[in-house]
Amino acid sequence: MRDAAENAQLALLLEVSGTPKPGNVDRHRDYDDLRFEHFMAGAVGSLSGLRMAADGARIGRAFERGVAGMSDQSAGNTQFGALLMLTPLVGAAATDRLSQDGGSEVVEATTVADACDFYRAFDHVDVAVDDPPEDMGALDVRRGSDAVPTLQERELTLYDVMERSADRDGVAAEWTGGFERSFAAAEGILADDGPIYKRASRAFLRLLADEEDTFIVTRTGEAAAAEATERAQSVLDGEEDAEALAEEFVERDINPGTTADLTAAALFIALERGLEV
Amino acid sequence: MRDAAENAQLALLLEVSGTPKPGNVDRHRDYDDLRFEHFMAGAVGSLSGLRMAADGARIGRAFERGVAGMSDQSAGNTQFGALLMLTPLVGAAATDRLSQDGGSEVVEATTVADACDFYRAFDHVDVAVDDPPEDMGALDVRRGSDAVPTLQERELTLYDVMERSADRDGVAAEWTGGFERSFAAAEGILADDGPIYKRASRAFLRLLADEEDTFIVTRTGEAAAAEATERAQSVLDGEEDAEALAEEFVERDINPGTTADLTAAALFIALERGLEV
Repeated sequence: MRDAAENAQLALLLEVSGTPKPGNVDRHRDYDDLRFEHFMAGAVGSLSGLRMAADGARIGRAFERGVAGMSDQSAGNTQFGALLMLTPLVGAAATDRLSQDGGSEVVEATTVADACDFYRAFDHVDVAVDDPPEDMGALDVRRGSDAVPTLQERELTLYDVMERSADRDGVAAEWTGGFERSFAAAEGILADDGPIYKRASRAFLRLLADEEDTFIVTRTGEAAAAEATERAQSVLDGEEDAEALAEEFVERDINPGTTADLTAAALFIALERGLEV
Repeated sequence: MRDAAENAQLALLLEVSGTPKPGNVDRHRDYDDLRFEHFMAGAVGSLSGLRMAADGARIGRAFERGVAGMSDQSAGNTQFGALLMLTPLVGAAATDRLSQDGGSEVVEATTVADACDFYRAFDHVDVAVDDPPEDMGALDVRRGSDAVPTLQERELTLYDVMERSADRDGVAAEWTGGFERSFAAAEGILADDGPIYKRASRAFLRLLADEEDTFIVTRTGEAAAAEATERAQSVLDGEEDAEALAEEFVERDINPGTTADLTAAALFIALERGLEV
């Protein structure tokens, strides 16, 4: 029987194996400098941090360890956001409370120390992020561990940090919104049938059609994010071909990374709830 | 830095991600009842056994644990032979002797207890094997742990067991032949360039062209094994298209599983020797 840490590692692998996931690296598509093999190495390296979360470590510390291991490959950020989703969910699963309420309990219990660890995680890898609001410059995540004194001075917990970016980051929105979309997507995966790489693809498309991807907004802009959501809906409506869209979005570098992060979380929840592999 | 156990897990993932590997499940191809997702779960489950090997456990015990974890998915045998290759190589790497001589030392040091563990591993999963020679019926591996008393009575080590099937099993031949083909294939991967899924594909084709696959002999027959080797050579000679051959072999269920096992071993050695991911 796989434990929660192993199911989280498997979720990372099943996520990237899902295809087609328009704009993402998937079983059939690479970017030149961000390839399937980097996600495999990222999943291997992530386990030790996920294991810490399963063993009851602080969420921030387990996350920082997971990111350190994940980034031990040459392509940089592969699964930063996915680990930010999975770490508290593993913590919840390991304490028998993998539910929206249980997930909320775990993230609401995070401390200032967890916030410091979260910032330290940015020392390991470059992550595409927006400029912070004007009064938050001292807390720009790109400052990494340099921001630790400010976090301590202002007594901000990791939950507080997430709350401040929930309006422009889809992962933070899940943290502060009871992981609502992730749990709903997990139910969709469980209710679906067929090979998991197809279920993962469909879950991804439903999530993308449902809400604009904040990673696209950050990297490519609001118009591209709106287009991605619209065209995911077209695929679901049978008006557009998913494979052709996947080719086009990789070509145009429109990468719905946040939607992939939520898909990984949904796969984890589905595995914990009995999805058979 | 990944340790030997993590590199072995990554080797399992990179192996199945290599494409095209004619006749194997690969990044682009599934069998109906043996799919990419099963290999992902197999790799996740294998780690605890590989970890034991890295921590100095007996080879048989680590192998049996790896197989137990690997088989925790619904498709049965995904990476039995690959684990039989990797477990002693991890043991060698963890004691700083990952070389042909070092690998030989590790397998030659196996005991009767290791042989008993090896047979116990067959309790976890059905593996396609030949009928044993007439005087070896009591040691048919399909008897699993029931063969333990016979092993103890005859004082057979795991190396002894491998020696007895080296003439008809490619993995056993590697065990008793200093892992020669695996180390040579690793050098080929290191000397190659480009994405790893293509290097893995080319290493696989070279191994298959070099020698008939004993897993095909067992499952499908000698003629199919001879054909697979001949046509792999045609691909290398540019006379046949690898993708078309991959489609055909999956269609005809000609699965060079032993060649995949050696490819996994070669990827592991290459990773330990500095292959960058």
